[in-house]
Amino acid sequence: INRISDELHAIRDLPAETLDGYRVCLKANIELPEEADHVLKYGAEGIGLYRSEFLFLTPGYPAEEETQYQAYRRVLEAMGDRPVTIRTLDLGGDKLLPNLQSYDEKNPLLGWRAIRFCLSLPELFKTQLKTLLRCSTEGNLKIMFPMISGIEELVNAITVVEEAKAECLEKGFPFNENIEIGIMIEIPSAAMTADILAKKSDFFSIGTNDLVQYSIAVDRGNEKVNYLAQPFHPGVLRFIKRTIDAAHENGIKAAMCGELAGDPMATAVLLGLGLDEFSMTASSIPLVKKIIRGSTIESCRILAEKIMECSSYQHVTFLVEAWMAEHFPDIGD
Amino acid sequence: INRISDELHAIRDLPAETLDGYRVCLKANIELPEEADHVLKYGAEGIGLYRSEFLFLTPGYPAEEETQYQAYRRVLEAMGDRPVTIRTLDLGGDKLLPNLQSYDEKNPLLGWRAIRFCLSLPELFKTQLKTLLRCSTEGNLKIMFPMISGIEELVNAITVVEEAKAECLEKGFPFNENIEIGIMIEIPSAAMTADILAKKSDFFSIGTNDLVQYSIAVDRGNEKVNYLAQPFHPGVLRFIKRTIDAAHENGIKAAMCGELAGDPMATAVLLGLGLDEFSMTASSIPLVKKIIRGSTIESCRILAEKIMECSSYQHVTFLVEAWMAEHFPDIGD
Ligand SMILES: [Mg+2]
Ligand SMILES: [Mg+2]
Repeated sequence: INRISDELHAIRDLPAETLDGYRVCLKANIELPEEADHVLKYGAEGIGLYRSEFLFLTPGYPAEEETQYQAYRRVLEAMGDRPVTIRTLDLGGDKLLPNLQSYDEKNPLLGWRAIRFCLSLPELFKTQLKTLLRCSTEGNLKIMFPMISGIEELVNAITVVEEAKAECLEKGFPFNENIEIGIMIEIPSAAMTADILAKKSDFFSIGTNDLVQYSIAVDRGNEKVNYLAQPFHPGVLRFIKRTIDAAHENGIKAAMCGELAGDPMATAVLLGLGLDEFSMTASSIPLVKKIIRGSTIESCRILAEKIMECSSYQHVTFLVEAWMAEHFPDIGD
Repeated sequence: INRISDELHAIRDLPAETLDGYRVCLKANIELPEEADHVLKYGAEGIGLYRSEFLFLTPGYPAEEETQYQAYRRVLEAMGDRPVTIRTLDLGGDKLLPNLQSYDEKNPLLGWRAIRFCLSLPELFKTQLKTLLRCSTEGNLKIMFPMISGIEELVNAITVVEEAKAECLEKGFPFNENIEIGIMIEIPSAAMTADILAKKSDFFSIGTNDLVQYSIAVDRGNEKVNYLAQPFHPGVLRFIKRTIDAAHENGIKAAMCGELAGDPMATAVLLGLGLDEFSMTASSIPLVKKIIRGSTIESCRILAEKIMECSSYQHVTFLVEAWMAEHFPDIGD
């Protein structure tokens, strides 16, 4: 299923650039360090999301500093000087540390997870941050916080980074003083206040899976209601546009690392909305790149403007499908 | 605890009007029909939210048409020609019909509930709507749908109302052809597309409890994270403002029936944001009215403008408390 057609293979080393010269960046999402070895053959320009959870889910963990260190280094080495964004622990809810007492929650998706979990266990969080800082001289490393809901949480997380930096200094570990700290935008209150959060962030990465779930108040895993989980809901599209616009008005980049970023039916829309970076399963990169290279940014912007006027996701879908049928008749959904 | 001081009692029959003559409407939330008998003594100008769930939660129910009919009539009679907004069944999630097989959900707050539940059980829903229509000639009745997330859902619900009307016509039941149909705004995607929804709604009522939960992705019942559930989060305030502005731009009223509507610390802010109707536990009405009658709309608007510039809920809270201390030193929090 990961077979790349010759045509797609041929564009591997070509830039993700539209016909009229508008350049974006395509990166890979990975879960295990060893995956980093394989993403380059799909043309990934870096890692946009390294999910650090696996290091914490194996019994016997939370991973000791050394184990974490080796894992992060391996990814950085595989990527050379390409950027690697490591997301801090995004656990909690239904995925708890094996040696932590389980906390029974009626609505784990609205519960004690991700940055909330880390901020309530500052030693565990600081250990991860110190380890990341220690690796920061060995590659182009960026740190990303999941599930930020407001400025207080972001400020608190940054405070822990400052503490970790102080401890590294004390121990004589060299680190990159200017390491970029970004946040995921995946909660409606964060998207709605992206202009505020941008003032304290070095980049955004939109997590469309959670953003859809919270925006529409629907658990995608619930078969009775998951028909509502539409990334093309006008409300979700407005959150995405708001986030990208706020990033640009504040001089930072807007990435996306949710499923939508790797969906070829969304590529033109996201380009038109101004997304700077698309991070996805590596094997999705060639097709997305093909669409980018076969489009003009002008036509994508016109499409995006049109869909932002739509009242319903059905209408959005109709326009996007029509656009794709016209420009890429061989790529169906 | 429901004791009304003489001063508060004295303003019962006075309008909810600011010192500079800006008039709003204060209504009561009720759960049981017999509560309607008591709300007038607090000065309620109508029922802003009648929760119809109790009719469906007693074993032996869903209530037969006749039982529902008597309950709705009783409320309408108690209120005379004052408006009564009845919300259609807001069940599901953790509150299921006793004779319906329970549906196990990992995140009931993001699940099969409210309008989703009703649209998947159209006969049950249509029975309630027909009963409401039958009562619509006996008072000033409005119908309100909970948990609308987008335009498709609203259109589907309105279609069931049309079917119910057709059945009433067929059976010769008289009803108010122009009965107002409004929606709760309590899901971020709805607040974000309030301009779209306003075109198909006769009024909005903002449900702040759920709106806060979904906007910030936090279950208020979860002790580990409920510190995040701040109605003064700038994101939540922006959703409220957006909803009110969209209502007014489309010539409809914006009400609020969540806890915030009865919170005296929020009255000035909500006035300043332009809220038209406040619906709350009846016993909260006198104090809210006292604040309204002791304020100028000008000073409330200045306060609202200031808080809309804040980056954090702490800053909003600080400004609101300072405003209250200046204008109402005897009403603390
Ligand atoms: Mg997420
Ligand atoms: Mg609700």
